[in-house]
Amino acid sequence: MECTVTSERLIIHDVGMRDGLQIEEQVVPTDRKLDWIARLARSGVDMVQVGSFVNPLKMPQMADTDELFRRLGAAPRPPGVVFTGLVLNEKGLERALACGVDYVCMGVSASDTHSRKNTGMTTADATDRIMAMGRQAVAAGKDVQASVQSAFGCGFEGAVPADRVLGIARRFVDAGLTTVSLADTAGHADPAQVEDLVGAVRALGPEVAIACHFHDTFGLGLANVYAAWRAGATTFEAAFGGLGGCPFTAVAAGNVCTEDVVHMFQRWDLRRDIDLAAITGVTADAAGFFNRALPGTIHRTGAIPHRGRFTAPANG
Amino acid sequence: MECTVTSERLIIHDVGMRDGLQIEEQVVPTDRKLDWIARLARSGVDMVQVGSFVNPLKMPQMADTDELFRRLGAAPRPPGVVFTGLVLNEKGLERALACGVDYVCMGVSASDTHSRKNTGMTTADATDRIMAMGRQAVAAGKDVQASVQSAFGCGFEGAVPADRVLGIARRFVDAGLTTVSLADTAGHADPAQVEDLVGAVRALGPEVAIACHFHDTFGLGLANVYAAWRAGATTFEAAFGGLGGCPFTAVAAGNVCTEDVVHMFQRWDLRRDIDLAAITGVTADAAGFFNRALPGTIHRTGAIPHRGRFTAPANG
Repeated sequence: MECTVTSERLIIHDVGMRDGLQIEEQVVPTDRKLDWIARLARSGVDMVQVGSFVNPLKMPQMADTDELFRRLGAAPRPPGVVFTGLVLNEKGLERALACGVDYVCMGVSASDTHSRKNTGMTTADATDRIMAMGRQAVAAGKDVQASVQSAFGCGFEGAVPADRVLGIARRFVDAGLTTVSLADTAGHADPAQVEDLVGAVRALGPEVAIACHFHDTFGLGLANVYAAWRAGATTFEAAFGGLGGCPFTAVAAGNVCTEDVVHMFQRWDLRRDIDLAAITGVTADAAGFFNRALPGTIHRTGAIPHRGRFTAPANG
Repeated sequence: MECTVTSERLIIHDVGMRDGLQIEEQVVPTDRKLDWIARLARSGVDMVQVGSFVNPLKMPQMADTDELFRRLGAAPRPPGVVFTGLVLNEKGLERALACGVDYVCMGVSASDTHSRKNTGMTTADATDRIMAMGRQAVAAGKDVQASVQSAFGCGFEGAVPADRVLGIARRFVDAGLTTVSLADTAGHADPAQVEDLVGAVRALGPEVAIACHFHDTFGLGLANVYAAWRAGATTFEAAFGGLGGCPFTAVAAGNVCTEDVVHMFQRWDLRRDIDLAAITGVTADAAGFFNRALPGTIHRTGAIPHRGRFTAPANG
């Protein structure tokens, strides 16, 4: 398969099917998921995260992940699109390898408290485990993205020192896991912090490709994407319709909205090949399915009706 | 009076009482306006726009602007706060000078179509008029801010050439009107465009102080504020609760939300003196008055609960 992530160009990775759907009370039926995935793939985004290899008893929303990959593997797919899966542990990796995932995402939290809650392990121990799993996936011929979660702050611990994040990223890179994602799990990132941290991870070496994963909890999502792009990140994880927020609290902590992110880049004539309407079509369908208004903007407003200037801001 | 706008520090100018209330169907009673203005002034924001000297028959929401200034002038005010008024023509300037406005805002649209619709004049003719009015206000001892509206794109004309905006700004500066506001009236700005245009206006001379006025129509408001600050803008116009959008359309084209803008800057330990809760208190009151949820984030979520890093991004 073609691996697009190490290229120089801007990569859009829609993670709504995983980070969005996993917290919805209502489980989306498998056939509907396949329809949404197919439409996202046809939109021209580069990567679609299909699901998470988590214990189905703990997260019934993700219980059909293996089946989704098997059915996607048996069907024709738009050229170039990559289907990714999130693995949390060795058992999940085994399942991912068995059902034919091309691209495996895995990660560790930079916050010990968050790491212990998620995995029962300290950050250091969890990093060891992810490095071993990452090497195993690479040996099996898979592409791997290694994430640092809570990279910009933690809902439990508060501020997370940049050196701590950088140390984890360095260990990933030393283990040959050179596609590093910085995930703002709690939505605490601000754009100046993003510029600094992305710049520092970039300085680890020319072989390092940086992805960013932002939540729009405090309204800074697109500002953070802009700052990350300016500092050299090339892949952006986002969710159609800004899914990912908990609809049952006042805090709408959704992912940055894929169509809003793409729309911003299209202002600079980047990724004009991506069909915004194809994405907002899925958003509209999801809003109907969940019977509520979804966050994000472009699916309500449409795109800015003129193309503006065509000069892209510097990347890195 | 103290003029804060030419200082080096970050200035927050709340324009919700004018740009927000002027498009609301429901007119806010004068006493309630005075309460909101007093609370905004006590929050620590530097400037509060009280109203617009427009024909009261055309815009009943602003009919009490003269009375507001007279009553504000007769009352004690928090130290340092400046009350501003928008004037659109000679008659408005006359009213502003008569009722004791300290700081006069005026502007011209960079789009001929927008300019003709607003004033019946071309951009060039309207610029002549604003320059003459600006000189008159300065001669009367007032501080003046001269705006270029539709500086980043026009709802009627589409893209607006940067050279056109720069030409207007140069004429303002040559006339001694060195506080220049770039207003994204339609909400079409993107952060790369903002960095370029603010940088170009800044290059007009060291005496130029740049304000920016963004609408969050397409979700790029805070990204644009960040970009403008990085490029050297020092004053930001914003509206409490993100008021300014038309509640009767799908497009919520409100101003950037004051509390969200301040919250972003406070991440960098700038303007910690501003009391976010005082602003969100006004937002809550306005949401009750207008009986709808207002845009913006921090009034729903609260601030990020830890202060993060304290290094401000470079300004200019």
